[in-house]
Amino acid sequence: MIYLDNAATSYPKAPGLGQGIAWHINNIAGNTGRSSYSGAVYNSKLIYETREKLSELLGCSDSSQFIFTNNATHALNTAILGSIEAGERILVSPLEHNSVMRPLTYLQEKKDVKVFYYKLNKEFEVDWKDFQLQLQHNKITKVITTICSNVTGTILPVKQISELCACHKIPLIIDASQYIGYRKFDLTKIQASAVCFPGHKGLLGPTGTGLLWLNPDFHLDPIMFGGTGSKSDSIHQPSFLPDKYESGTPNISGIYGLSLALDYINKQGFENISKAREEIVGYLFHKIQEIEEIIIYSNLDLARQVGVLSFNLRNIPCSEVTHQLDRNEIAVRMGLHCAPQAHKLIGTYDLGGTVRISPSSFTTVEEIDKTIKILKEISYGFKR
Amino acid sequence: MIYLDNAATSYPKAPGLGQGIAWHINNIAGNTGRSSYSGAVYNSKLIYETREKLSELLGCSDSSQFIFTNNATHALNTAILGSIEAGERILVSPLEHNSVMRPLTYLQEKKDVKVFYYKLNKEFEVDWKDFQLQLQHNKITKVITTICSNVTGTILPVKQISELCACHKIPLIIDASQYIGYRKFDLTKIQASAVCFPGHKGLLGPTGTGLLWLNPDFHLDPIMFGGTGSKSDSIHQPSFLPDKYESGTPNISGIYGLSLALDYINKQGFENISKAREEIVGYLFHKIQEIEEIIIYSNLDLARQVGVLSFNLRNIPCSEVTHQLDRNEIAVRMGLHCAPQAHKLIGTYDLGGTVRISPSSFTTVEEIDKTIKILKEISYGFKR
Repeated sequence: MIYLDNAATSYPKAPGLGQGIAWHINNIAGNTGRSSYSGAVYNSKLIYETREKLSELLGCSDSSQFIFTNNATHALNTAILGSIEAGERILVSPLEHNSVMRPLTYLQEKKDVKVFYYKLNKEFEVDWKDFQLQLQHNKITKVITTICSNVTGTILPVKQISELCACHKIPLIIDASQYIGYRKFDLTKIQASAVCFPGHKGLLGPTGTGLLWLNPDFHLDPIMFGGTGSKSDSIHQPSFLPDKYESGTPNISGIYGLSLALDYINKQGFENISKAREEIVGYLFHKIQEIEEIIIYSNLDLARQVGVLSFNLRNIPCSEVTHQLDRNEIAVRMGLHCAPQAHKLIGTYDLGGTVRISPSSFTTVEEIDKTIKILKEISYGFKR
Repeated sequence: MIYLDNAATSYPKAPGLGQGIAWHINNIAGNTGRSSYSGAVYNSKLIYETREKLSELLGCSDSSQFIFTNNATHALNTAILGSIEAGERILVSPLEHNSVMRPLTYLQEKKDVKVFYYKLNKEFEVDWKDFQLQLQHNKITKVITTICSNVTGTILPVKQISELCACHKIPLIIDASQYIGYRKFDLTKIQASAVCFPGHKGLLGPTGTGLLWLNPDFHLDPIMFGGTGSKSDSIHQPSFLPDKYESGTPNISGIYGLSLALDYINKQGFENISKAREEIVGYLFHKIQEIEEIIIYSNLDLARQVGVLSFNLRNIPCSEVTHQLDRNEIAVRMGLHCAPQAHKLIGTYDLGGTVRISPSSFTTVEEIDKTIKILKEISYGFKR
């Protein structure tokens, strides 16, 4: 099987991850943060050390700012629902995923929150004049933006956005789901209030892991409360990080897996993994243009793109293309990719979306060649 | 190591669970509910079939009523924060965990919700007259109760409570964290609005798995929103079960592990596992009474107790007892167990809590004998 759906979840995971999790499940007994026996202490240390590894990778000086969540959606909901109050005015990109748009839609209906979109041109470039005007004229209270579209792979200029937000003292919530693990992300260079991302995509960890990085100055109520193993005498949620936002038994074995994945990234070198991926993406972008009937919606400049390719074959429904790829054991995703707004922007909403290819650093040239060959056959088969 | 902290999380897990998860991580590529290639279809089927297995075990006719969560705390928060509106009046048991009390404390402070406690006598029996009076005089709008205390193991008469609630048309939310997997639970016999429980305790599954069973007549708003793989064209959360309450990538490998654990339970026979556990608990309860200096807080009648033993040794701090047990590689938990209310009831709040022993069906007579021997030595060592 050729797996080209890494924007949904990475496969393969970091080498040894499955066996490592099995070892953890078989050998480490107990919960975390709640007891003093060896297994419980091991798990508490594991979780602390995994936060430290994340801090090192992402340039954070205080690892307690990393909150473990079930997935990026959980992280985004914590940041969005926990911070936005009635009547607030939110500016978002036109490329947001439903994990941003659906909580915002709820807030629109329940709390009279207003949502505004900043503008991108056909090349996915920000209209800065419009952005600035909106911040002021629309009295924006928070900005929420993805760094990278899950539909087109487009990287948005989050550093500049963060500078504008800081200048206007407007909190910025970043969806980094399709970016972290692929490109260098440095928290010291981006002035954000919250950054949300999964453990199971670019970081090559298992499902059931997500992260919320939180600026300690950013006020938000938890969206869940419960046992934390700390201040157990109190029926009030602890007020300190990370306990304030981490209730109940965490996905300990999953965090163990993520920790192994971070070890793998450190051992191989982040830059090397990133470069390997960029090379194969570059090869894909080059070869895909050989297909006559292709319509490409992603920008192909690798400086502004992480490596997610959305396309259609002219006059062939994307469901049919995907069906043929399935038959040839090539795994891609088709449709709206939980991001209808993005398809409205690129004009594919009424087509039912696009076919999306997202390689990883493990993808080979042979796999891309086979995929291109099959796509040519599909295209040719329909033309006849 | 002797592991006696199964009330925190089960260990060992169901046989083969670790290796099974490794197989899943190594061999099944893709997310769930979002694509048509073989790995994605495998995962969608896996999640559906796991719901079906839960339905079969718990007497539910429609498996879509089971919502996967990160843990029982997530399930309880969904039921509590999603359903309770401003000014509501909530009746709870005096044995609730912080996963119930902390969200309620938040609602007390933010939404003027009032919390009342029903009464238990020294034998943990419900004062039914008081219960009925409170339902009416305190104008109770919802009842939330644990079936089984995580501190004392006491089983509360949830069937009778559910009948009273049904009679008064008051929704009932049940915390079954310490019960499901240990004793038979039949959804057809209990008229509940929501039942919350973990996958990693009595069901012998991995951490990172929790369940919310929902009566479809029970109205609650989701506490999180996002991509569900369904109705992707809409920025509104789907209105149907289970998607309404399941956003983002689930803990797919964890659910695979839970599925294997349910297979193990079915293969061994639920009754056989339950009986094995009851026998070892009975043996523990018998032997523990040989220790002269013991003060037992749990009720010891196995008809009203799942097998969680809270105790102290006279004049010895529970931290010291646990420290000595740790040194002998016996894993128990001490303290307030995230349930300060329960310790107020049994009079151990000011002592810093209790020592808690919670065996599993895998616990052996030899392990109990060794534990009793060490406890006797600790007790004797302090007396000298």
